[in-house]
Amino acid sequence: MENVTDLFAPRLLKVQKSFIREILKVAANPEIISFAGGLPNPDVFPVREIQISCDEVLRRDGYEALQYSTTEGYLPLREYIAAEYNAGYDLHIKPENILITNGSQQGLDLISKVFIDKDDKVLIEKPGYLGAIQALSIYQPEFIGITLNNDGVAPQELAEILNNNAIKLFYTVPNFQNPSGVTYSYNVREKVAAQVAKHNIILVEDNPYGALRFSGSDQPPFRKWLGPQSIMLGTFSKTVVPSFRLGWICADHDIMEKALVAKQGADLHTNYFCQKVVHYFLTHFDMQAHIEKTKQAYKKQCDAMIGAIENYFPKGVTFTKPEGGMFIWVTLPRKIPSLKLLELALQDKVAFVPGNPFYIDGGGGNSLRLNYSNSNPDQIEIGIKKLALAMKKLMEE
Amino acid sequence: MENVTDLFAPRLLKVQKSFIREILKVAANPEIISFAGGLPNPDVFPVREIQISCDEVLRRDGYEALQYSTTEGYLPLREYIAAEYNAGYDLHIKPENILITNGSQQGLDLISKVFIDKDDKVLIEKPGYLGAIQALSIYQPEFIGITLNNDGVAPQELAEILNNNAIKLFYTVPNFQNPSGVTYSYNVREKVAAQVAKHNIILVEDNPYGALRFSGSDQPPFRKWLGPQSIMLGTFSKTVVPSFRLGWICADHDIMEKALVAKQGADLHTNYFCQKVVHYFLTHFDMQAHIEKTKQAYKKQCDAMIGAIENYFPKGVTFTKPEGGMFIWVTLPRKIPSLKLLELALQDKVAFVPGNPFYIDGGGGNSLRLNYSNSNPDQIEIGIKKLALAMKKLMEE
Repeated sequence: MENVTDLFAPRLLKVQKSFIREILKVAANPEIISFAGGLPNPDVFPVREIQISCDEVLRRDGYEALQYSTTEGYLPLREYIAAEYNAGYDLHIKPENILITNGSQQGLDLISKVFIDKDDKVLIEKPGYLGAIQALSIYQPEFIGITLNNDGVAPQELAEILNNNAIKLFYTVPNFQNPSGVTYSYNVREKVAAQVAKHNIILVEDNPYGALRFSGSDQPPFRKWLGPQSIMLGTFSKTVVPSFRLGWICADHDIMEKALVAKQGADLHTNYFCQKVVHYFLTHFDMQAHIEKTKQAYKKQCDAMIGAIENYFPKGVTFTKPEGGMFIWVTLPRKIPSLKLLELALQDKVAFVPGNPFYIDGGGGNSLRLNYSNSNPDQIEIGIKKLALAMKKLMEE
Repeated sequence: MENVTDLFAPRLLKVQKSFIREILKVAANPEIISFAGGLPNPDVFPVREIQISCDEVLRRDGYEALQYSTTEGYLPLREYIAAEYNAGYDLHIKPENILITNGSQQGLDLISKVFIDKDDKVLIEKPGYLGAIQALSIYQPEFIGITLNNDGVAPQELAEILNNNAIKLFYTVPNFQNPSGVTYSYNVREKVAAQVAKHNIILVEDNPYGALRFSGSDQPPFRKWLGPQSIMLGTFSKTVVPSFRLGWICADHDIMEKALVAKQGADLHTNYFCQKVVHYFLTHFDMQAHIEKTKQAYKKQCDAMIGAIENYFPKGVTFTKPEGGMFIWVTLPRKIPSLKLLELALQDKVAFVPGNPFYIDGGGGNSLRLNYSNSNPDQIEIGIKKLALAMKKLMEE
């Protein structure tokens, strides 16, 4: 054999290893206070309840729970998800509209597989979710960016982009977006939906954190206005546990047929045992109390970070105030590069993710993402204070 | 929105829903004796041991076991897999060469993603594994077929194909192949490897059943001769349990780097909890005894089917005698279509999979696949007797 690299498909030649992954390796050092990752707070994991659920599933029908199963996923779990959508927003979702995936990341991969051919145009927020950029990139689309403001994207900017580009798919995270923490207002949702409805495009609304709102009031999904033009992605990673890799796609029949073919080729089906375990957990324990506990933990962590930021960050630095989720977005004065800040911060044993990788157009150089869900309030206080010192140092240079 | 189907990517327009899946739906009727599926015998599932393993993993480090984890997979599990390869065949595999996937089906998808661009040439056995045909098809290769004989593919035919076609990847199941039950002989392996080594191509050896040999003697993987030119796919679906969806890719550094990028985009990582559970199971229970029990069960079922075939099938019908795995391949006289046999058989409440879908060139019309691992010897006797009657009826027409 001459050279295996000659054999690689073009789709992977340009995709680099995640920059964030490299930072996370550094941040894994226990001496470092890390605001870099996107890990949920493990203190709220329902370990005892999961243990009981595993026991019960294996005791009741262990042989069936360990066998191969259907590509669509465990029907009672799909019924549960559909019922949640319908109770919350009267969306008329049926279990047939739900496909269980390995986390919502696989939902993204399957949707990309179904829709995206080389050079197809995909619209994504600036900043946008990095996992989506990675999943989509493999299918070689042309990314078009749209500025994310504090209440969502600007409907006028969206109208212009949609009129001037044959966009196939618009990917958005409307609640407590990763990385920005921004939530689309009701008003913006309505106007964005009206623009999208004028074109033959799909809106993919990814909603990993929606259940974790600790202030403000719930907003309806775009599907309320867009119906079959919306694909919803969901996950149990933030509300139950991440390691099970359980998410879902919610879409209409024609899309679901194709997504099923893609899912079957990709891995036959999602871990069936864990689907049954999560369903047992959801239906035998007090989910509302569990979610409440999770929200309270995140609110405490978020409040601690916002408080420290307000106390310590220098003038000229702005930041978002999320109503839920796990992230705060910080914008430095224009001339201060967050990569330089990262260098200084790492010397002082604090880590975060610089904003640039979240921009598909090379922007965001003076911004950064802070995660609060995986640090306790004391660490947050110390880490933010250190970050503030590093900022001041850079701004005085 | 006008029409969502206008938006689908070309890669999925031609891929049909699996014909086998439709047969399996019919065969799910409990009144039907089904030789159609490819399900392991659940009687050998280590339910109690898995239950203890779940308990122990959650008791020892539940919070860590339920958190997000690395894309590569759980290191001790990767070390276990590498050690198994090295103990069996002195292959010098390191844990860095192992990536844990959602079953070996995902290994196939990731390898396809890394290597296959539209119209790239992929070589596959006739008959070939349907899951591979499905996974690969999404990447739109040109399939080239090579006849599978009772001891593997003919080295001379392989030499001609490789000389006349720019093959990128040769996919093979060398042990108790699905669907044929055929195993490559040592002699054929050596000669096939010598041909492959002459070209800049990758050989993907998928080995889901290798540990389940109940007669004959173990054969080395192609990697013994081909080293980094071989990618090995493996799975715990047949040796532990299928529902966990735990498989792996074993490949060298350059390929692994790309496979990791593809895996990260596809679903971040494989179910981490179940990786730890399986590792606990593998290292705390008597695996050798468990494998022995599984082999004995399969041998009994295989012997029952071969015995019934020899007793009842009419002259002119030939069949393979597998040394392991789960399938027997039956060839009818040339003019007898197995689709017609399926119609008759279903009327008599027996199901199997006709041979045609396993052929990438439309062949195999007079052949069929029989699965013995999911029926007990009494059902096998009754089902084969009924099939024999249907065959005689067709052959007398």
